[in-house]
Amino acid sequence: MAEPTPEQVVDAPSGPSKSELKKRAKAAEKEKKAAEKAAKQQELAMQKAAAEEDLATEFYGPLPLNQSQSRPRRQYAQISTFSSRDGETVLFRARVQTSRAQGNKMVFLNLRQRTDSVQALVTVTPEKVSKQMVKWTAGLADESIVLVQGIVKKTPELIKSASVGDVEVHLSQIHLVAGLDARLPFSLDDASRGDAEVEAAETQFNKVLLDTRLNNRVLDLRTQTNQAVFKLQAAVGDLFREHLSAKGFIEIHSPKLQGAATESGASVFKVSYFKGSAFLAQSPQLAKQMAIAADFERVYEIGPVFRAEDSNTHRHMTEFMGLDLEMTIEEHYHEVLELLDGLFLNIFKGLREKYKKEIDVVGKQFPAEEFKWREGPEGTLKLTFKEAVELLVEDGVSRDVLDDFSTENEKRLGRIVKAKYDTDYYIIDKFPMALRPFYTMADPDDPLLSNSYDFFMRGEEILSGAQRIHEPNLLAEKMRSKDVDPESMKGYIDGFRLGCAPHGGGGIGLERVLMLFLKLNNIRRASLFPRDPKRLEP
Amino acid sequence: MAEPTPEQVVDAPSGPSKSELKKRAKAAEKEKKAAEKAAKQQELAMQKAAAEEDLATEFYGPLPLNQSQSRPRRQYAQISTFSSRDGETVLFRARVQTSRAQGNKMVFLNLRQRTDSVQALVTVTPEKVSKQMVKWTAGLADESIVLVQGIVKKTPELIKSASVGDVEVHLSQIHLVAGLDARLPFSLDDASRGDAEVEAAETQFNKVLLDTRLNNRVLDLRTQTNQAVFKLQAAVGDLFREHLSAKGFIEIHSPKLQGAATESGASVFKVSYFKGSAFLAQSPQLAKQMAIAADFERVYEIGPVFRAEDSNTHRHMTEFMGLDLEMTIEEHYHEVLELLDGLFLNIFKGLREKYKKEIDVVGKQFPAEEFKWREGPEGTLKLTFKEAVELLVEDGVSRDVLDDFSTENEKRLGRIVKAKYDTDYYIIDKFPMALRPFYTMADPDDPLLSNSYDFFMRGEEILSGAQRIHEPNLLAEKMRSKDVDPESMKGYIDGFRLGCAPHGGGGIGLERVLMLFLKLNNIRRASLFPRDPKRLEP
Repeated sequence: MAEPTPEQVVDAPSGPSKSELKKRAKAAEKEKKAAEKAAKQQELAMQKAAAEEDLATEFYGPLPLNQSQSRPRRQYAQISTFSSRDGETVLFRARVQTSRAQGNKMVFLNLRQRTDSVQALVTVTPEKVSKQMVKWTAGLADESIVLVQGIVKKTPELIKSASVGDVEVHLSQIHLVAGLDARLPFSLDDASRGDAEVEAAETQFNKVLLDTRLNNRVLDLRTQTNQAVFKLQAAVGDLFREHLSAKGFIEIHSPKLQGAATESGASVFKVSYFKGSAFLAQSPQLAKQMAIAADFERVYEIGPVFRAEDSNTHRHMTEFMGLDLEMTIEEHYHEVLELLDGLFLNIFKGLREKYKKEIDVVGKQFPAEEFKWREGPEGTLKLTFKEAVELLVEDGVSRDVLDDFSTENEKRLGRIVKAKYDTDYYIIDKFPMALRPFYTMADPDDPLLSNSYDFFMRGEEILSGAQRIHEPNLLAEKMRSKDVDPESMKGYIDGFRLGCAPHGGGGIGLERVLMLFLKLNNIRRASLFPRDPKRLEP
Repeated sequence: MAEPTPEQVVDAPSGPSKSELKKRAKAAEKEKKAAEKAAKQQELAMQKAAAEEDLATEFYGPLPLNQSQSRPRRQYAQISTFSSRDGETVLFRARVQTSRAQGNKMVFLNLRQRTDSVQALVTVTPEKVSKQMVKWTAGLADESIVLVQGIVKKTPELIKSASVGDVEVHLSQIHLVAGLDARLPFSLDDASRGDAEVEAAETQFNKVLLDTRLNNRVLDLRTQTNQAVFKLQAAVGDLFREHLSAKGFIEIHSPKLQGAATESGASVFKVSYFKGSAFLAQSPQLAKQMAIAADFERVYEIGPVFRAEDSNTHRHMTEFMGLDLEMTIEEHYHEVLELLDGLFLNIFKGLREKYKKEIDVVGKQFPAEEFKWREGPEGTLKLTFKEAVELLVEDGVSRDVLDDFSTENEKRLGRIVKAKYDTDYYIIDKFPMALRPFYTMADPDDPLLSNSYDFFMRGEEILSGAQRIHEPNLLAEKMRSKDVDPESMKGYIDGFRLGCAPHGGGGIGLERVLMLFLKLNNIRRASLFPRDPKRLEP
């Protein structure tokens, strides 16, 4: 029976006073709310009862929201293992990537776990699978999370739409763990196609643009490609640490909040810090050098670095992950250069040996020539800046513009080197002093050159490093020559006044390494939630 | 011959014109500068020649600044290995912690590498060690870095001032790698003494106060105590990753720059972001939950978190390292709680087994009862919030003040638990819903309680965690009930609208774990370069 509305109460014929009417209206409103609440509670109770009944029959239906009510400790299976489990009954949780009903007796599902997917089907079977269960399954939205049970069966033909295509799962139970409460901005199938595939098919498929992806990053990250990309991102970090740890490095954590705008004032973010200001560190450069002055000998840090550069290129972000290291030098700065080279070789080899599956998954959406490096006894290609200039001049670039390398000439050099030496990875040593920051140590034989180097992948810089000045007075002099006030960095210089060993190091951009190894073409694809001058969300 | 000063030129008797005088003065000034420069260059050349001669004789003297000139690839030794190298000639680089001349024929040095030190001596020996070499050595400032060569010899009596006390090194060569350009604000010996030692000796030793240490952190970090503290800090991170990696977690990196002031607006740092504003993340809470909604299943992050709280207690900093993790739940949120417990046990055991030496080094300056946890089959002590309240009430605390635990009552509980259960580590589960953030999942049986927990070490909280709400409408409702506008966190809620599995996690304060394990008594001692409302340097 419908509750009377306040209007109906007010319109009653007995003719009470205005205040009485108000009072009655209020009471009625209260009553209505209570009734609504009761109805809602009843509905919830019914839903709960239905869910529990479903659970009891264990065939299909929603699971309770909270789940933390019992703990049968059942074994959840991984789709990746199914090829070798023909005939076994498996219980597993997965996303419904797509579902397709065939008449009212059968539903095909593509079920996905991260980089793996398998075909599942629900077919009407006497005493096992009811028509209702098939209907309910057909109604599940794409991207719902389900808990299913079924028997793994070999298929006569390979199912191309699934990554585990030699089996399918005949389901006897299907429960909803989490449904959808919004329309999908794009389908995972569309988001998983390569540009080439979309363009070849012209209008048949929807192309999901990068901005749309990034605006809906949670959904975009679910593609098998992105699952693989971020497994590989974590792998690069692991390989970095593994190598350095074996070489006697320890991990440090330096503060991102700085009292002064260091290195270069222009591109530093300013922070309101209680009644004053702070600045976000552009790199852990100063801190890691202070750690060397504090006798840590060999340190590395993996942490965010911040650059307030209003640049929206394919390879710049305002926040990215720096893989930084610093170490003392015993005899020659090439000790650092060689250690860094060994580090990269360990990363490349580790990725190829342990993550072939993920690299192949990414390659489906982003086709690329396999990343190549020199593995023979000749070792990594090392050019001096001067030799690199000569290569560009030979190739037709005017010497006049080669005081520094433009992004374009860097890429051109990458192509020349690839053609001539068949490598995507090389080192350029001995940069002109004028191109390097104030803390760079000069070449002992030629003060116009420096003991500094950049590392390149596919023609783009991924590491910059050098021997640093450890003598405080020379450091202060170089600061002044580059218009940096030594007083603004007193804590830093003072560290060297108390005695510091010769040292050098470098900083690697994690996302750049990942982007270039996989040829993702835009650095935002290598960042979980990228930040640029125009993007702070999600 | 002394150069004439400009005054002397002006005072010449020939009586030239005023302009002529000016001209001459200028010329003289120029000449003087040239002469000074020449003299300086000559001095430098002589110094260099002297250094090279010293190097050639290979007995003593300064090394060239840059060092990257030759690469003989000599083997540098570690002091820690010397006990077993009696009779061997070793080459090593070390700090001069102290030096003490005995007459003009002998100098004793205490040489230090990180957590190790050894006694070395330079004695006049015909054709090997000259009087000049002894004199030069005696003149080295404390904290100079030297490269030395000598023979390791067993000593009849243990040398107490050295950590490797059963041997000493008889030096035949000593070169200066880096000298000092400032007075030491305190001696390393003074900085290495425990408070108890200083107080017992009353006026004999200088007590180095925490603020003095932090103002001169580079020097302070050189103490053997601090070298050990930061080896242990790195170890906690390694053990955290090792455990989670084995459990199928992957590392993520989430942005610290946020578009909105999340979680709680009051304690967030504001950043100038081009023409707008950004905010520093108070935790990776939202990002790691979005990673779960994006199917990453099990993620962890090690990264800085920022808290704009104007609080100068022993356990608060404005920037600290968060060890965060988040994982999907299959059946019950205790899966998360148990995983976290296993993680802590792995960290504690790993520290005790692999880092006993470092723990002992720290214990000398910061004496503490060894950290204890329950290792028997009964497992870690788990109390409900209600049980914890009862323990405090039994101990005499008024029930009225126990809606939440004050820092004082937390510590009191720690003492009660230690006395009753003999453990410094325990878990409190089932906190009242009112005490937890909006994203916390309620207890399915009692909506006033929540599926949340805190972990404690020596009576202080080191982890806070919970099952989270994964249902978007319930989440929005809870936000409104805690006065958070769901619209301000749209990207976050939208992630859940696209389907998200039940999940939970926790956040650990790295420096707190380290401080409490070692009983350092102030969190700043567990941070390389700590940040608090009053400190942004060095």
